[in-house]
Amino acid sequence: MARINEHYRNLPAGYLFPEIGRRVRAFQQAHPEAPLIRLGIGDVVLPLVPAVIEALHAAVSEMGTQQGFRGYAPDHGYDFLIAAIREHDYRARGSEIAADEIFVSDGSKQDSGNIQEIFGQDCRIAVSDPVYPVYVDTNVMAGRAGKVDASGRHAGILYLPTGEANGFTPEPPEAKVDLVYLCSPNNPTGAVTSRANLEAWVAWARANDAVIVFDAAYDAYIADPALPRSIYEIEGARACAIEMRSFSKRAGFTGLRCAYTVVPKECTGTTAAGERVPLRDLWARRMSTKFNGVPYVVQRAAEAVVKPEGRKQADEQVAFYRENARRLREGLGAAGFTVFGGVHAPYIWLRTADGLSSWNFFDRLLGEAHVVGTPGAGFGPAGEGWFRLSAFNTQANVEEALARIRRVFGRG
Amino acid sequence: MARINEHYRNLPAGYLFPEIGRRVRAFQQAHPEAPLIRLGIGDVVLPLVPAVIEALHAAVSEMGTQQGFRGYAPDHGYDFLIAAIREHDYRARGSEIAADEIFVSDGSKQDSGNIQEIFGQDCRIAVSDPVYPVYVDTNVMAGRAGKVDASGRHAGILYLPTGEANGFTPEPPEAKVDLVYLCSPNNPTGAVTSRANLEAWVAWARANDAVIVFDAAYDAYIADPALPRSIYEIEGARACAIEMRSFSKRAGFTGLRCAYTVVPKECTGTTAAGERVPLRDLWARRMSTKFNGVPYVVQRAAEAVVKPEGRKQADEQVAFYRENARRLREGLGAAGFTVFGGVHAPYIWLRTADGLSSWNFFDRLLGEAHVVGTPGAGFGPAGEGWFRLSAFNTQANVEEALARIRRVFGRG
Repeated sequence: MARINEHYRNLPAGYLFPEIGRRVRAFQQAHPEAPLIRLGIGDVVLPLVPAVIEALHAAVSEMGTQQGFRGYAPDHGYDFLIAAIREHDYRARGSEIAADEIFVSDGSKQDSGNIQEIFGQDCRIAVSDPVYPVYVDTNVMAGRAGKVDASGRHAGILYLPTGEANGFTPEPPEAKVDLVYLCSPNNPTGAVTSRANLEAWVAWARANDAVIVFDAAYDAYIADPALPRSIYEIEGARACAIEMRSFSKRAGFTGLRCAYTVVPKECTGTTAAGERVPLRDLWARRMSTKFNGVPYVVQRAAEAVVKPEGRKQADEQVAFYRENARRLREGLGAAGFTVFGGVHAPYIWLRTADGLSSWNFFDRLLGEAHVVGTPGAGFGPAGEGWFRLSAFNTQANVEEALARIRRVFGRG
Repeated sequence: MARINEHYRNLPAGYLFPEIGRRVRAFQQAHPEAPLIRLGIGDVVLPLVPAVIEALHAAVSEMGTQQGFRGYAPDHGYDFLIAAIREHDYRARGSEIAADEIFVSDGSKQDSGNIQEIFGQDCRIAVSDPVYPVYVDTNVMAGRAGKVDASGRHAGILYLPTGEANGFTPEPPEAKVDLVYLCSPNNPTGAVTSRANLEAWVAWARANDAVIVFDAAYDAYIADPALPRSIYEIEGARACAIEMRSFSKRAGFTGLRCAYTVVPKECTGTTAAGERVPLRDLWARRMSTKFNGVPYVVQRAAEAVVKPEGRKQADEQVAFYRENARRLREGLGAAGFTVFGGVHAPYIWLRTADGLSSWNFFDRLLGEAHVVGTPGAGFGPAGEGWFRLSAFNTQANVEEALARIRRVFGRG
């Protein structure tokens, strides 16, 4: 009798975004004429930039020739991409990362979901609340999170609530924790971690022999050079931090799939007997056994983004979305909403109108304004009463969405 | 103190193919002039076929336009690819598979490694010996396999030895098992399961409420229409079998990455309380939470392979590699080697010369013939004394490799 993994029973009924998809489809079937504007799932809308398209076509043509064909990629990424990442993403900003500390993958969602596999079953996890659901759900599936209580929190996870009081930025906990997930710029709140806050986290991790998983998937949105884009800009982080970066939002790769994870050699975990083991070696083994590389053509596309010409083109797209974020932030603020985020992030985090619950606000926004957003409660109990809008749309749609929201909620 | 997943300590020191890579690099550094022929890792050498290249270029061009750009793919694959798979891979051969039973992924390695996640920790696993290492290693990492004994076997896994006596095809066991991995055409032995054998497995699974993971990554190599290419050609298999198929060897996608897994709705596992749960729902949840889709451009390329024109081109490549396999099989046989496989499979499975161990034969073949193969012992203790050669090379290299092997081992 094949027993199932019953930890799945402790998951919420559906992963957040499929649930949103179901509600939107049901609405569209009932109202096929309603002109929807999607500011929900966080998917980009601008086409791939010319440097990427050029790199893709060139690589595709190579794959059609005997001389240019490439089969299995190197387990952890092609040298050309890893070299470009070292040079342009790190060395140019003062961090030295070795080639064998970089692991190219098909997404930060996957990496941040899979990283827990290399840790022990009894590892104590901390996440912010609200939080990107993948960090929690993958630990639930692995049996580390335990049952859900009435508030929607898992007994085995330490939640670090964020809100207006702490600027949606968690502080290191007093309680004993082994592994903490930090996301900056934050999904969903759009908050960005200051250098001082990140220094406090690194100091805490070193003092407590804890590991930080630093998800910097949105780092391209940081415009202020005083703000850290990589945790390795902080002294001592190499000993305690794993970092994830993505091409999804930086260059519109949501449908192309490329990301990478950095695991410095100094970063270790321990065995029950107290022996120190480099986490890099465990992750390398995990990726060799359970992954088979990112397509050659996609790695060439990613290389084009990292190098100066493609980066310039991609930066223009980021600037475009940042301008959308500014319009949403200022427009919603002028309409009387309480608004956070949207400065160094593509996400706007707003308090729902009229004291509505997050899902009720979602349904009203969809039903009356025909605008799709993401309920804050979907990111954790502390997200209840909040709502996420993304800046990933055209300027015209952003303006139209603003006008409709003002009309429906009768402000400004 | 972040504890590591100590189950990794029960893994062999390196995943097989990276270990081969290390030995080959060491040899090349010492002998940079030696002209190596690689019949090892099972990577294809022919370029992508024209229909695939055309589909890729067209999809890349779309991604560069506002109208044609696609962001996140549907969680479980694009409708166009799933529809093509249902029609051409299944309905054309008499099997009806629903659209929501097909899950498009980036590789059968990943799927066959990840499938264990949806089963309980106490699930009893069976594999053939020799076996594709991913089935075992991923269960070791998950803590289901226990310690390794002196023979290289894990205490928690039931091994089904295959050899000359059973034609390298395992029979259903007497012992209680919940989950069995079958691979046909087999990696590494090249053996192919007969209809009668597969019927016996399905009957056993149904009688014992067990689940079969059927890895059909090499199904394109089956030339005899009497042999089953899909387990769903066997009556009753929908209730007990999960099937995996790949584009890697069928159309040279090792560097492009696309595969799919079928989980029929009738296929269930049980909770401790005895409730039946469709495995399809668990796999759907796993993929929604831990995966983010195959690139649009790659799914268009896979569609081209499934449809008639691209299939015809891909079939010609398969025929080319099958001809290589025939030459290897017959040439090695004539040279006095004991040879299996290589008829409905791209792999030749031969007894090592002079009673050498698998790794000693590997080292002599590399050092004296400059031919890279794969040691049978790397696939399990019953593979000791055997060796795998792949047919994935040019005809000239296959002939040259044969000539060198004859010269070094002094036969024929």
